Amino acid sequence: MESVLKAYRDVGDRVKADSASAEATDALGTLFARCQGYLADTERQPLTSRVAGKDYFAFRRGSKHSRAVNTSLYLGNPDPVGSFLDAVHANTPDALPSLDITRACYTVAMAFCCVIDLGKEGDQQTPGTLFEYLVCHLFSRRLGVKGIREVDVLNLDMAAKLPTDYIFDLGQGRPKFHLPVKTSTRERAVQVWAHQRVLDGVYGTGRFSGILVCLAETRLDSRKLEVIEICVPLQWRLYQMFIAQMKRVYYLDIPEPYRALNNVFPRIRVRPIGDFFSEVDVLCDAD
Amino acid sequence: MESVLKAYRDVGDRVKADSASAEATDALGTLFARCQGYLADTERQPLTSRVAGKDYFAFRRGSKHSRAVNTSLYLGNPDPVGSFLDAVHANTPDALPSLDITRACYTVAMAFCCVIDLGKEGDQQTPGTLFEYLVCHLFSRRLGVKGIREVDVLNLDMAAKLPTDYIFDLGQGRPKFHLPVKTSTRERAVQVWAHQRVLDGVYGTGRFSGILVCLAETRLDSRKLEVIEICVPLQWRLYQMFIAQMKRVYYLDIPEPYRALNNVFPRIRVRPIGDFFSEVDVLCDAD
Repeated sequence: MESVLKAYRDVGDRVKADSASAEATDALGTLFARCQGYLADTERQPLTSRVAGKDYFAFRRGSKHSRAVNTSLYLGNPDPVGSFLDAVHANTPDALPSLDITRACYTVAMAFCCVIDLGKEGDQQTPGTLFEYLVCHLFSRRLGVKGIREVDVLNLDMAAKLPTDYIFDLGQGRPKFHLPVKTSTRERAVQVWAHQRVLDGVYGTGRFSGILVCLAETRLDSRKLEVIEICVPLQWRLYQMFIAQMKRVYYLDIPEPYRALNNVFPRIRVRPIGDFFSEVDVLCDAD
Repeated sequence: MESVLKAYRDVGDRVKADSASAEATDALGTLFARCQGYLADTERQPLTSRVAGKDYFAFRRGSKHSRAVNTSLYLGNPDPVGSFLDAVHANTPDALPSLDITRACYTVAMAFCCVIDLGKEGDQQTPGTLFEYLVCHLFSRRLGVKGIREVDVLNLDMAAKLPTDYIFDLGQGRPKFHLPVKTSTRERAVQVWAHQRVLDGVYGTGRFSGILVCLAETRLDSRKLEVIEICVPLQWRLYQMFIAQMKRVYYLDIPEPYRALNNVFPRIRVRPIGDFFSEVDVLCDAD
């Protein structure tokens, strides 16, 4: 456990020093290897899935079990994760199939979440922070700029800092990305649209492209060992229509009720994270 | 403890049955008496206050202590609370001085919060729910209408329910109030403005008057026994300018950094809860 936490702190140091650096990729690789080592001593607990078309298991150690893990996304064999991290290191992940990227990202993120679930009591903060580091690094490395955590708001007679998840500024005449990162959204999704609205108001609509990145929306009932997915697509539609417009939502384990928002008008573009790497040039165009 | 929880459930039943009823007032009176009984067996632990101009203590029972309680707002003598609840029962609290109302509301709410802090482990939900019942009842009784928990959103080809804290609908040609209720806001304040924005968008700006009601913004450092207040007034100003306009914010223990927002332009009207009863007619006018 201590070696996992040390590797986690090292990822944090590397991402904070330079979120676009290859050293951050390497630190994530080390962390993943440590997590694999920890999880080698665990068993897989099958779970009852109440999510149509998806199966889940949990890692179990003694009487404790982890959060729900999507069986078809989690890679039991670490080799494809290594290939993905090699591609990130070389800045060539665009060449990989979207599903391979999604699975590799999911496996890296969930391995760490599950280690923390098993090794620490009620710690939601640490998995969330690692997920932010992972997503920030992948976006930074692909976009070639560091992620920053707040923006200046200069507005006549007041000066303020608006804290955000991540901002990526590609420079003059090019887009800026507002990147909220959440392990799950539940009732907090409205924050994402509201922060986008403030950015639209302060800087002008269209100056920041909002991209929400989420891990999953599953919840595990620990007694019944039953997995459900909590989705509020009608509320998302209201936020998208009345608060602000998010350009993309990327999921590692995409819920079907949100994927369906691609098909109703006005559309919300909800996609698996693997799609980001092939469409990043479209996102960087002022479409 | 069990008798307090029974009285709490009874308040819930009465408020849900008819939030404007005198039976709900009586149930709150019973609950307060039970809390007083429980707290009679406790000691007062002085706290170090890092909040300018305010002193705090905590209730202590053995090694456990409650959240921070404002010394000048919490009434050690229950008689003025009884006078306030009698006035609510008779629907005449407008006749009481604002500070008396604020103190009585604060004492009822905090007595219950502190009992739960001492008697249950890490339960934030129950104090929050009682605070919602209390505020909903006071507004319902004064306005003469029941509080409801969601509104229909009918919008061309989609129908949705928007869950809210409380909505008070005074009827045709009269205002509707959108009343979020929070024991503290911290980083969740943006939700309040975002929900107001959706209501403005769906129904038209000005149809719902947004009124946020909060208990306090204090946080107690349990090891140092030190109280701080967490306020983000510049962020509130951004929300008020760029997301939506809240008509009032009422506090039971009002933080000075938020009270100061009354004095900068554009103003946010942040007031002690006692002021509500004397200005309710102004709020009901279409000003």
